[in-house]
Amino acid sequence: MLIVQKYGGTSVGNPDRIKNVAKRVVRTKEQGHSVVVVVSAMSGETDKLINLASQVSDNPDPREMDMLVSTGERVTIALLAMAIQTLGHNACSFTGRQAGIISDSVHTKARIEKISTDRITQVLQDGGIAVIAGFQGIDEHSDVTTLGRGGSDLTAVAIAAALKADYCDIYTDVDGVYTTDPNVVPQARKLNKISYEEMLEMASSGAKVLQTRSVEFAKKYSVPVRVLSSFNDNPGTLVTKEDSDMENVVVSGVACDKNQVKVTIIGVPDRPGVAAKIFGTIASNNIIVDMIIQNIGEGGLTDMTFTVPKPDAKKVMEVMKQVVAEIGSKGVSIKDDIAKVSIIGVGMRSHSGVAAQMFAALAKERINIMMISTSEIKISCVIDAKYAELAVRVLHENFNMDKAA
Amino acid sequence: MLIVQKYGGTSVGNPDRIKNVAKRVVRTKEQGHSVVVVVSAMSGETDKLINLASQVSDNPDPREMDMLVSTGERVTIALLAMAIQTLGHNACSFTGRQAGIISDSVHTKARIEKISTDRITQVLQDGGIAVIAGFQGIDEHSDVTTLGRGGSDLTAVAIAAALKADYCDIYTDVDGVYTTDPNVVPQARKLNKISYEEMLEMASSGAKVLQTRSVEFAKKYSVPVRVLSSFNDNPGTLVTKEDSDMENVVVSGVACDKNQVKVTIIGVPDRPGVAAKIFGTIASNNIIVDMIIQNIGEGGLTDMTFTVPKPDAKKVMEVMKQVVAEIGSKGVSIKDDIAKVSIIGVGMRSHSGVAAQMFAALAKERINIMMISTSEIKISCVIDAKYAELAVRVLHENFNMDKAA
Repeated sequence: MLIVQKYGGTSVGNPDRIKNVAKRVVRTKEQGHSVVVVVSAMSGETDKLINLASQVSDNPDPREMDMLVSTGERVTIALLAMAIQTLGHNACSFTGRQAGIISDSVHTKARIEKISTDRITQVLQDGGIAVIAGFQGIDEHSDVTTLGRGGSDLTAVAIAAALKADYCDIYTDVDGVYTTDPNVVPQARKLNKISYEEMLEMASSGAKVLQTRSVEFAKKYSVPVRVLSSFNDNPGTLVTKEDSDMENVVVSGVACDKNQVKVTIIGVPDRPGVAAKIFGTIASNNIIVDMIIQNIGEGGLTDMTFTVPKPDAKKVMEVMKQVVAEIGSKGVSIKDDIAKVSIIGVGMRSHSGVAAQMFAALAKERINIMMISTSEIKISCVIDAKYAELAVRVLHENFNMDKAA
Repeated sequence: MLIVQKYGGTSVGNPDRIKNVAKRVVRTKEQGHSVVVVVSAMSGETDKLINLASQVSDNPDPREMDMLVSTGERVTIALLAMAIQTLGHNACSFTGRQAGIISDSVHTKARIEKISTDRITQVLQDGGIAVIAGFQGIDEHSDVTTLGRGGSDLTAVAIAAALKADYCDIYTDVDGVYTTDPNVVPQARKLNKISYEEMLEMASSGAKVLQTRSVEFAKKYSVPVRVLSSFNDNPGTLVTKEDSDMENVVVSGVACDKNQVKVTIIGVPDRPGVAAKIFGTIASNNIIVDMIIQNIGEGGLTDMTFTVPKPDAKKVMEVMKQVVAEIGSKGVSIKDDIAKVSIIGVGMRSHSGVAAQMFAALAKERINIMMISTSEIKISCVIDAKYAELAVRVLHENFNMDKAA
């Protein structure tokens, strides 16, 4: 089989852990598989680099930021290739560029456009192990780009898709996907299998185990993804196509996202084109809006509320102050002590009353709901951040997530 | 004027120092010059990376070593470009590859073969400042190479030659080239001017102010090099073509190199082709031999003694054990507590008795000389390492180097 393995920052956090990863890679190779490894920067390194940048500039240029932070993964690939060679196997490290990962030019959150796997294929044909820097690519100007936080998952899935790998194994510090964060709910249960759709909603709802775009990519190209621990040999969680087992479960998991802020534009004139103006401006700044609510008010004025990722808050406020002036609304306010709590499950499609059950469970604990959004397989509520853990525990228990279906 | 500035690791050792360098760069730019900046890794970073490698492998692969250590300069270029931008000027960072530096494939000590300055020229034409990673290039396979320790000097001089720059200014933590190391001899005097030839001999004799190959390159392409301090505005030392002023001075400087080991091959059969075998083997391993002495002994056997850089000692011993067996000599021994002390000056060409004066000065202090080598403008003696500083002081005084000619 051809297996792509991805090891995150904690798994390669120091030389001993890198040697441990080398052993795992070699073990897979010696079981007769072809192995491609994608690695992140050693844990803490990316933050250290970002901190250096903040000491020389208040508003670092994105191109230079990518030049800076892309170095972290390069250190890991070289060290891992050396460690594998020490165990008697051929290994060759590749930067994003050398691995043929071509992206657009949106620095710090670039999108992969094309992968040319020639060099990787050559190494595999020669019986070697390819070690690839996650999180990075190169644009048409030959400038280094990065794929956004957690982008190494995306690199792994994209490489697996391009190589038509049998599995893309994501090694992390937990041994699979849980019904919720076990640090918050000790009764959280590991799932053996989860659908791409559920995983996607989990990821976009704040579960940190896999990056959203990597799940989208896996779904699009039907890449079988396994989430595993690099510290033990427990069976992990398989992320795959939806099947009939999964549909029997109403709610598969509960997720919590504290990394968003709520922005409200007050007194928006209720006329066509205003919403397009607001969200068009945000989109052109490459900021992703999550939830949107419009309250129809009196006198032709409405309030428009939406959430964006915390790191984009400053930029959104700058941009919105201009927009507020242009459209003639009253002002803009921001609230950052919020949490989004979501329940997810493909079984919701065939079960009614799930939303009502969720609202009742929260109401019973007197947790006020500020915003609601729903999809076919997810219900999300924005609440006060201080109730986040309580809400997760209540919902986990209320929907019996500690028990397998 | 077009000025290439190079800042070493100490000058960019932390964010504050990087901001200080940015100010110097911008000041030069605002004086009306076009500026290209070449930087090293922040001090200590390269050693930190090498240390990481030593923790995962006893004998790291040179290709992977280059992938690893080339990251240090990439961090500095991004930070410096950001710091310059903060001061209101356009700046763009370039890796060795992006700066068009093509080298051969001898990893960890690659030689520059070609420079394509298109991207740099474009930035300068647009009124911007180009910030280039020193020490690195890329080979024909698109793999990252490094140019050896001190390779950032070489990058700066090579870029200056390719761009036909008016000056290549090497900023360091000392404010010029001294007659000898002021830490050893407090009377050491700063030279206003030194010839390429003298600088070359100084560099290859252990003076750390400029890397040897960068001086060779400057000489070959007649690049005017200035050695300056990044911490003050003192006038530095100009490295340039020999002129009549320089010839009046018999000895311009004394240098000391403690970074060599002495290897002796005992009982070498005295027949044609043996020396070629020994030094051919060393050369094919890309190790540079400095001094060579052959003692003609009895019974057709000779001893062959030579010096090599300390980091190559282990490899030389491995290689020599094979050669010893092949040529049928008695064995090989190594001595690493040696120092090479050299006096340098273009005036030696027209003065006799300089060598005799040097030997007499050392003999007066009862310092035993193990090896001697001479060039037109240099005399070197290998002595016991423990007498190194004493020898430097004695020679500095004996040749009146504290007094300008």
